[in-house]
Amino acid sequence: MKIFDTICSISSPQGVGALAVLRVSGVQAFEITSKLFKDFKDYNALPSHFVKRFDIYDNEQLIDQVMAVKFCAPKTYTGEDVVEITCHGSNYIQQKIIELLLNNGARLAKPGEFSMRAFLNGKFDLPQAEAVADLIESQSEAAHKLAINQLKGNFSARIQTLRSQFIELASLMELELDFSEENVEFADRNQLDNLLQTLKNEVTQLTESFKLGNVLKTGIPVAIIGKPNVGKSTLLNCLLKDDRAIVSHIPGTTRDTIEDNFNINGINFRFIDTAGIRLTDDEIETYGIERTFKAINKADIILYMIDISNTSLEEIEKELLFLENEIDFINKKLIIVANKIDELNELPKRFSDWNEYDIAFISAKRNVNIDEIRDLLTQHIDQKKITDTALLTNIRHYDIMLKIEEEIRKIEAGFTDQISTDLIVIHINAILNYLGEITGEINTDEVLDVVFGKFCIGK
Amino acid sequence: MKIFDTICSISSPQGVGALAVLRVSGVQAFEITSKLFKDFKDYNALPSHFVKRFDIYDNEQLIDQVMAVKFCAPKTYTGEDVVEITCHGSNYIQQKIIELLLNNGARLAKPGEFSMRAFLNGKFDLPQAEAVADLIESQSEAAHKLAINQLKGNFSARIQTLRSQFIELASLMELELDFSEENVEFADRNQLDNLLQTLKNEVTQLTESFKLGNVLKTGIPVAIIGKPNVGKSTLLNCLLKDDRAIVSHIPGTTRDTIEDNFNINGINFRFIDTAGIRLTDDEIETYGIERTFKAINKADIILYMIDISNTSLEEIEKELLFLENEIDFINKKLIIVANKIDELNELPKRFSDWNEYDIAFISAKRNVNIDEIRDLLTQHIDQKKITDTALLTNIRHYDIMLKIEEEIRKIEAGFTDQISTDLIVIHINAILNYLGEITGEINTDEVLDVVFGKFCIGK
Repeated sequence: MKIFDTICSISSPQGVGALAVLRVSGVQAFEITSKLFKDFKDYNALPSHFVKRFDIYDNEQLIDQVMAVKFCAPKTYTGEDVVEITCHGSNYIQQKIIELLLNNGARLAKPGEFSMRAFLNGKFDLPQAEAVADLIESQSEAAHKLAINQLKGNFSARIQTLRSQFIELASLMELELDFSEENVEFADRNQLDNLLQTLKNEVTQLTESFKLGNVLKTGIPVAIIGKPNVGKSTLLNCLLKDDRAIVSHIPGTTRDTIEDNFNINGINFRFIDTAGIRLTDDEIETYGIERTFKAINKADIILYMIDISNTSLEEIEKELLFLENEIDFINKKLIIVANKIDELNELPKRFSDWNEYDIAFISAKRNVNIDEIRDLLTQHIDQKKITDTALLTNIRHYDIMLKIEEEIRKIEAGFTDQISTDLIVIHINAILNYLGEITGEINTDEVLDVVFGKFCIGK
Repeated sequence: MKIFDTICSISSPQGVGALAVLRVSGVQAFEITSKLFKDFKDYNALPSHFVKRFDIYDNEQLIDQVMAVKFCAPKTYTGEDVVEITCHGSNYIQQKIIELLLNNGARLAKPGEFSMRAFLNGKFDLPQAEAVADLIESQSEAAHKLAINQLKGNFSARIQTLRSQFIELASLMELELDFSEENVEFADRNQLDNLLQTLKNEVTQLTESFKLGNVLKTGIPVAIIGKPNVGKSTLLNCLLKDDRAIVSHIPGTTRDTIEDNFNINGINFRFIDTAGIRLTDDEIETYGIERTFKAINKADIILYMIDISNTSLEEIEKELLFLENEIDFINKKLIIVANKIDELNELPKRFSDWNEYDIAFISAKRNVNIDEIRDLLTQHIDQKKITDTALLTNIRHYDIMLKIEEEIRKIEAGFTDQISTDLIVIHINAILNYLGEITGEINTDEVLDVVFGKFCIGK
């Protein structure tokens, strides 16, 4: 695919700063950019990758003194000729230079268009392109690691392996097909079935990894529940405040604060607004109960908070029974937070017959033992899995993998029902197509729009 | 002054974007940065100004694939060795790279510290450094032009000329002094007085240009006044909406919206909140009248709005007389806005005997003739003066110029009172010192802190 137009965009974050970066990419990148540089006509003679100072003029008016570098195709991000302009970071200057580029023949890049060109020019495959977007969005160490792994091509490699194994399966089947008229069952169906089971396990492992991969990317959903005045808001503030303090120690950085997000050991946790429970301390029994349970059911971790200074074991047990009737605890972790230990003369005996639950004895008010909760929260995450080279983190990949699982089930049924080989091969080919959709070997404009439309401007 | 430590900072705007730029400057810039680049030991052998791709590692963890360029002293912004790193613009990556730089011996740059080093290394003088900060902050074409002119050194040149003229005055005086024992009045006092008057005019011209320079930089203050329901809010919305529409057509740019700022022909106008009048349409006669007049008195331009469909000339005249008693109209421009022409069958005759006032007949509701107001607003500004090479825009310079005016008055008095030459020379020397403070030839830590403390991070 040959692209003829030249795109430009502001690539640094929006707003005012010391410097801003603008990018121009396309066949006319050098020609268009050099028109902005008055009294400089020999831009083509400049060596690639060298930074030089230029004056940008709008007619007779000096707009800015900038640093610019040209990158000659194909050794560039997009694979095309690219110019990067570093200007003073005022809004006026950024806008003005973009205007001048537009006036001289460039057009504004759509979100992700630089990366789309890189993909179309074979700079990386689709999962790697998607990793670039994830990398930019990543707010936590864990999310960053996942994106980096995917950017390095680890995930793509796993998909390619899967693909070649399915090709092997297909070729074994087709071998059978070629000789079927001679009534020779060439490949052992047992052997085929074993190979299929191996592949099925691999696919299932990937789809199952999506849950972890996805929450690591977007934050692990946590709900804090409990009766009014047990200290839920105080606990939340404890957890959030420490995190904010860590983040704010480097000036010049901000955090796109999604309220009630916090970070423990590089993992992002995201508090679910349990519709009134946390915010207004309405009684769980009296108000918005359905909405509340719906919200709670979205959580991976439930912090069930009690006031240990005036709650008996029996009451807790009764409440938990009630909760278990309403909340699906499968795949959820329940942490009991026994608050207000500061109001006790001595700690109660450990709830030794409650081994199934994790309990932290804390005082949210006096910021005591909050680390116990942090430990319990992170224990929920299998740290080793985070460094797994190929977690499934992308919903597009996940949706395709579910379709592949469906096709595998059809192949299994085909084996069981002794369906003819050529009908089974159709399903294997469908799987190969799906895998090609993941890597981008098979792509449509629609797929590309979905993938790159999620990018930020300028990438 | 030799500086031994190495500073680093994020220099692109805060937040998430496709790319972010980090800068490192100082004697150890190359050494510290190269420690981040795993498997790359030959950073010193790289040519200056050459952009290269590097992998940044934190121990075994890949943090980002970046582009970095080293600039060898002294041909750099700061005059020191500088490295610029362009990384993916996630908050996590930006913070992490800064952390790694800090861990390897750099320290965080204070706001303006790169520019301060540039100044200390003789890269530019103080007004030029101040122009860099103004350039980054400039929101309008006019403010941008002023900053560019100052950056180009036009203002500094004017100050230098002034300085050499005062030196000439001083030397003429000292010549007189040298020969004073011989009782020869060497220089003609008239000639001296003429030179002083020339210099005084020049200084006065500069101090008087501050009013324009300052409002061009910060926005020209405009007040809209008038009785309730004459359409003040509707007019304001007309003026603001069109401006917003112009700004928003380039995606990827934002505007640090100071509410109620708008731009006409590249000049920034800033609406003064006239304490209730505009926002709540309270009667000027009944509420907050003192506060209101105080606010109105801050305006350079007053839009006095009337409902032309039910106001007689006599009423307007009466109101204006009332206003003139309360508001100091010297140096202010009054524009009468006759609103609601849509409710008239025919336009009233021009107020021909009101030649002293500017009148626009409009319908804010139907967006008719709003351009007339725009024209009247911009007519207030002498467009030629904006391109004047040396408007005084900086309050620090202004304060110093006022002190110089004071010294000139003392010299004048000295001439009049036949004060002895050596006493007059003291005042000339004070002026030379003041001029040196403007250019930075004479500077103290305190002055530098004031100047560079106003910069944004990373510049």
